[in-house]
Order: sequence, then C-alpha cells, then structure tokens
Amino acid sequence: MRMIDLIEKKRDGGELTTAEIDWFIRAYTDDKIPDYQASALMMAVYLQGMSRRETVDLTLAIARSGEQLDLHDVAPFVVDKHSSGGVGDKTSLVVLPLVAACGIPVGKMSGRGLGSSGGTLDKMESFNGWHFEMSLPQFKQQLADVALVLSGQTAELAPADGKLYALRDVTGTVASMPLIAASIMSKKLASGADAIVLDVKMGSGAFMPTVEKAQELARIMVDIGNDAGRKTVAIISDMNQPLGHAIGNALEVKEAIDTLHGRGPEGFWAHCLEIAGQMILLAGKAQSLDEAKGLATAVRSNGTAWQKFRDLVRAQGGDVAQADDPSLLPQAAYVEPLLAPQSGTIAAMDTAAIGWACVRLGAGRLVKTDEVDHAVGFVLPAKIGDTYKAGDTIGTIYANDRAKLAEAREGVLAAITWSEEVVRPLPHIYAVVE
Amino acid sequence: MRMIDLIEKKRDGGELTTAEIDWFIRAYTDDKIPDYQASALMMAVYLQGMSRRETVDLTLAIARSGEQLDLHDVAPFVVDKHSSGGVGDKTSLVVLPLVAACGIPVGKMSGRGLGSSGGTLDKMESFNGWHFEMSLPQFKQQLADVALVLSGQTAELAPADGKLYALRDVTGTVASMPLIAASIMSKKLASGADAIVLDVKMGSGAFMPTVEKAQELARIMVDIGNDAGRKTVAIISDMNQPLGHAIGNALEVKEAIDTLHGRGPEGFWAHCLEIAGQMILLAGKAQSLDEAKGLATAVRSNGTAWQKFRDLVRAQGGDVAQADDPSLLPQAAYVEPLLAPQSGTIAAMDTAAIGWACVRLGAGRLVKTDEVDHAVGFVLPAKIGDTYKAGDTIGTIYANDRAKLAEAREGVLAAITWSEEVVRPLPHIYAVVE
Repeated sequence: MRMIDLIEKKRDGGELTTAEIDWFIRAYTDDKIPDYQASALMMAVYLQGMSRRETVDLTLAIARSGEQLDLHDVAPFVVDKHSSGGVGDKTSLVVLPLVAACGIPVGKMSGRGLGSSGGTLDKMESFNGWHFEMSLPQFKQQLADVALVLSGQTAELAPADGKLYALRDVTGTVASMPLIAASIMSKKLASGADAIVLDVKMGSGAFMPTVEKAQELARIMVDIGNDAGRKTVAIISDMNQPLGHAIGNALEVKEAIDTLHGRGPEGFWAHCLEIAGQMILLAGKAQSLDEAKGLATAVRSNGTAWQKFRDLVRAQGGDVAQADDPSLLPQAAYVEPLLAPQSGTIAAMDTAAIGWACVRLGAGRLVKTDEVDHAVGFVLPAKIGDTYKAGDTIGTIYANDRAKLAEAREGVLAAITWSEEVVRPLPHIYAVVE
Repeated sequence: MRMIDLIEKKRDGGELTTAEIDWFIRAYTDDKIPDYQASALMMAVYLQGMSRRETVDLTLAIARSGEQLDLHDVAPFVVDKHSSGGVGDKTSLVVLPLVAACGIPVGKMSGRGLGSSGGTLDKMESFNGWHFEMSLPQFKQQLADVALVLSGQTAELAPADGKLYALRDVTGTVASMPLIAASIMSKKLASGADAIVLDVKMGSGAFMPTVEKAQELARIMVDIGNDAGRKTVAIISDMNQPLGHAIGNALEVKEAIDTLHGRGPEGFWAHCLEIAGQMILLAGKAQSLDEAKGLATAVRSNGTAWQKFRDLVRAQGGDVAQADDPSLLPQAAYVEPLLAPQSGTIAAMDTAAIGWACVRLGAGRLVKTDEVDHAVGFVLPAKIGDTYKAGDTIGTIYANDRAKLAEAREGVLAAITWSEEVVRPLPHIYAVVE
C-alpha cells in the first residue's frame, strides 16, 4: 500500500478499507510513515469525517498497536469507566469502591491531571506512601486479592494513540469527533474491559460546549464499544460548574470520603450513583438501573464501600490513618473565605477558568515537571441559581502562598457571573446514550 | 505567530492575513516550521481553498523567498512565457526568436523535461556543445548583446516553491488550483517579467482534463499576475493530441527550424503565432493581436527570426552548422514507419501515453539520472479527424534499440482510438483569459 493513495482517497471524501486503516496504524506505529503524511491524513479526516465502520476499524487498529489485556483469569467480568475530564471530578474515588463492594472486581488504569482537570492518581497521592506504579502481575494479584486496583498504565496500551495524539496536538486535528472517540475507546478496548460506562461532560469546563456535541461524541463512542462487542453506555453530565464542592487533591479526597460516609454534597452523590448504577447494571448484578442504584446505596450505608476504599489505600501503600482522619491529610497554611462581591444570583461559571485558577494555586501542573501541592484548592459550595448577599461566604480558598492566594481569589471571582434575575439550577445529567 | 493558529483558521474556512502568509513562507523556508505542520496546512488549503487575495499573497511571499531579478538595466521591458507542459511542445524554440526578432529582448529560464513532457533545455542540447548553465552576469551580458538567452535557473528563484512542492508531492496536495497557480506564478514574478503569456494546456496529455478546469486555473494565474502588477494573458490550448508532428529532442529541433523557415506543420505554426502575438502585444510593439501576428509573420518571412535562432545556438556554444543542416543533428539508427492497424478515422489519442512511449524510447528520463537520447522519438503527422486505410503510414519511429522500437510502436498504436464515424478535427485554441 502507498500512504499517498490513502491520503488522496480520504481527501476526496472516500471511505478507507479495514485493511488500509490497519496498515496505516501499523506502519505509523513502526515509524514507517513520516509525520507529514500522517498529519495530511489527519487533516483530511478532520474535514471529511469517517464513517461508523471506519471509526470502529481505526479504534480496533489503535487498540491492537500494543498489548491487549485479558483479565478474565482474575476477574470474570471487567467493567471500566471513563470521564472526559472536568473540574472537581473525584467520581472514581467514590464509584470504584461502590462497584467493588457490590462484588464486581474493578481494575482501573488512570492518568495524571491534564489541563484544568485534576487527575485521579494525583488525588490519591494525597495519602502518604500511596503509589500506583506496578507490574501487570502485581496489578492482577491485587485485583484477585482486593478486587480493587487503581494504577497507572501497567502495560503499553495503544501506543499508536500516544503517537497520533502528539501529532494531532500540533497540527490542528484534535477536535475531530471520530479521532477523539477512537483515541478514548482504543485504550478502553486494549485494557480488556467487557463493559464501559462513559461520562461525557459538557459545558464551560468541558471539551464539548453543548449537549448536542457531547451527544454526538457519546453516540460514536457507544457505537464503537458495541460494535467491538463491549457493553457500552454514555452519560452526558453537566460541567458548567465544578462537580461537588471541593477542587484540589486532598480537598477532593476528603469530599470523596465524606460522600462514602453519606455526608457528601447531594449533587455529587447523585452523579456517583448514576455512574455506579450503570456499571453495576452492565455487570449484570441488577435487573434495572433503580435496583443497581439501590445496591450502591446499600453498600454505602452498610460501610462495605468505605472498607473497599480503605483497602485501596492500604493495598497500595497509603496511610490508612489519613483516610480514617482526613485532618491528617496535607493541610494548607492559609485558609480564607471567598466572599460574594455583590448581592445577586449566580448565573454562570467559567468552570475551566476556576480549574486553571486551582492549577496556578499549585494543585496541578502548568508544565509536566511541576510538583503538585496536594493541600491547596477551593471548596466552593456556591452553585448556579444560588442567591447571596454582598459579603456572604460563597467558598473557601486553601493556599500555601499569600500571593497565589490573592491571585486565585481574583481568578475565581472573575469566573463567576452574577444576575439580578432568578436563575434555574442546572441538571446533573442531560442524557443517557446507549 | 503560532503555526497551529494558522492551521486551525484555514481548517475552519477562514482567510489568512497577508502577515500570516508572509510569516508562514518565511519560517518554512528557514526550516522553522516542521513539515508535519506545513502538510496539515496544505491539506486544509486543498479542502477549504484560498481567496484571490490569499492566493496573490502566497505567490508574492513565495516569490520573495529567494532572489528577485531586475533585468531593466539590460532590457527595458521583459516579457516571458510559461507552458503548463505537453507532448511535442517545442513552442519556445520558435516563439522566442520571433519575439526577439521584433526588438523585444527575451531572457528565459527554463527547465528539464518532466514526466511525459519534454524540456526545452533537453531539446536544445541536441546541438553539439550547446549549454545553458551560466551566471546571472553572463545571462545579463548575453541578453544585452544578443537580446535572446535560454538558460537554466541562474539564480535561486522562489526556493520556498521547491520545498513546498516536494512536500505537496507526497501528501496528496498537488492538485489544488491556488497552490498550482502560486507555484507557477511565483517563479515568473521572481524572474522579473513585466508581462507573462501563459499557455495552459488541456486534454489527454495535460494536467487539466477539461477546458473548464484549465480556464479556472488560468483565471487564478491571470488574476495573480495582474494583482502583482504584471500584464498577464493566458491561452487555453489543446493537448488532446501532440503539438505539431515531431516528438523527441532533435526531431523537435528540426521541426522548429522548419517552422522558422515557413515549412513547419500548419497547426503548430498557428499555435506559435498566437503565443508570439500575445507576447508582442503585451510588450507594446503592436496595437492589436492581428498587428502583432503580422509582425511575427514578417520576421519569419524576412529571415530575422531565423537569424535570432542561429544567434541563440552560437551564443551558448552550439554548433551552428547543425542548425543550418539539421541532418547533422543526432540521427537514430533505426527509422521505421508506423502503419495504421485498421481503416478508419482517428477519434482520440492518449497523448500522455504517447509521451511516455517516447520517454521509454530514451527521449526523456524515467529517473532523474537517466541520460537523454536526443536522436529518438516519433514524427506523427496523424491528427484526430484524419482518415486512413489499414497499412497506411501514419508516422515514423526513430530508435537506437530494436526492442525499444517494438515497444514504442505498440505504445503509440495502443494510444490511438479509431472510429468508423466522421470525427471533427480539434481546435488549437479554446479560449484566451485576460
């Protein structure tokens, strides 16, 4: 095959064959196709699109570019979740223990924080000693013993995705629905999931700006999953404001712990229940979503989900005393209230800007080599539709540096739009795509 | 500026500013933009197009990427021609002496043969000793002394074009009208032409398959020339059959000499007269095209154009005796008639296939390093619309190798389609775009 023929076919709106897509991914992974040809193809795909069949083929080809895990020797049925990323999104910390407590082994590979979104691994590193680097045999051993693992990438999954993503990032070809869908789903397929629940965020803190765009992406990903023989469901959830109250690593860990104890923010619990319910339903442990949510609520109430969380901390070297007493988690030197600058109702939040303000406070990385400060962040119970008087406390800033604290205060306040009208609260979930 | 912003703007159908286009061409020429970003932009341009203003800006930016000649110290008004390439196209060998003989200095930089098309420099090298490599001062000296020069590139004209073309060639982005137009016109602008006559070929031996496509390209190039302040005219001419009768270097030189002596093929002379007439008109030596054609015919009749041709041979080291007696030009060992395989009328010719048959005979290069055999080729007076009986001589093959002769015979015959119906002859010129 000749790369130029594939480029010209896609350029002219044609459909690439399965063999052509397989060949491209294999040859590109093996450095046999130069970047300048791959980028021309990516731009042609961006502008001409891909059919459902092409998108599935691309996803499978990327999934096959590296190792493909089979966890069935230690877990009869593997269910995974993926979030498209958001501010204050500590859902995995609650959902994974809930699902594991329902008798469904959960082995999840996760990532570091990216952009304005925090990373689950960064959050768990708030515990002294907790680590996520392990070999594949260790991963499987913990999955068999504890039924719950949260690791980094233990295997070279979908290396073609990393290479293609780096190229797309610098050639204006990231925001293509089939390419985004293939990138996300290829890693899920390679990690051996039998069922996948996708949490596709939409709004001011998400990649997708509208429900329609989020549904379009969700539809493609669900189609890929189903065509690849994996049970797949997507939830379109709100990211027009931070999820829950806490933003920042140890603050989010504490909120997750509170939630597992039944005293977390109501909206965040509703979100966790939806995701956990879908996972339990796909795993065949319940006949209906309501039954699945009932199971999740029961393992929260009877403490077994909390025990699973403790297991997760302990099994990976973390200090369980900090889980039992979150005041032992990293604490910020400066804690100051965030005051409403005017009377009125919160009409909108620039959620990404709030996320970036948290990153600049030290909770995330501006460059890859930055150290994360686990103590800092915000607790922001204020939600769209809430009414305050000027000077009311709308949240709290946790900082280890006075100048950064002042900058963060300014950043958060600038991200909030006030109105004198009545503003309706936002829903947590917009749609379920299955 | 950031390359990614330019890529995304064009990807989304936006118009690049003059400053953005200038920056891109300068940075790419200086190796400061990687090929994978340039190819993504080229694909976005291919699919989203460029406005007239963008195309002119791109052309000017490419023209400014290297040296820009000013020949006004030796020639008060510089007129140039460009042919989009074709089989049997020896037009320059006749037109340049005609124009020079009308008192218009002609300094032309030309190229080697490309694909199925022969190159003017290759043809002139049929003369023993003739050479085209010279410095810019030598080029100017000959222009001042002889008023006629035919050289290779004496200066580094539009280096960005060479770099971009090489990239486009392997990324499926050659066949873009604005990019083709900018590539051609940038070199013309950089070479210092005050007026440009473009010969845009269309048909089975040309890049443009239809009159409409050829006119579209011509329109863009004429707009560029005029917007850049150069008088520009384009002729859409036929390339559904070879131009004139001779195909192959020394055979074409002989046909050019015959034509300058008034005994060349009628259709070829009509073509030369059109191009020369437009050049003379643009140079201001005549008030109308008819008057300009009259001048060109007069300098043919009175022998001054022929003397200019002899000057061109002699001034660049060629053997004038070969010009005076073309039987002294390289002669082929085997000369055999080409016979009509059936009775009927010629309905169509695959002109590119005839060109490739000639290249394989040795008249051109399959790879860059091939030696050219100046003696070989075809003389093919047969034209679309001509009627023959089976066994009639429709042409002659000149070869230096028996096996290649047989292959060439087969190639030419396979390229000709016969009909039992009456077929109308083709026009030489379809349109003039100005």
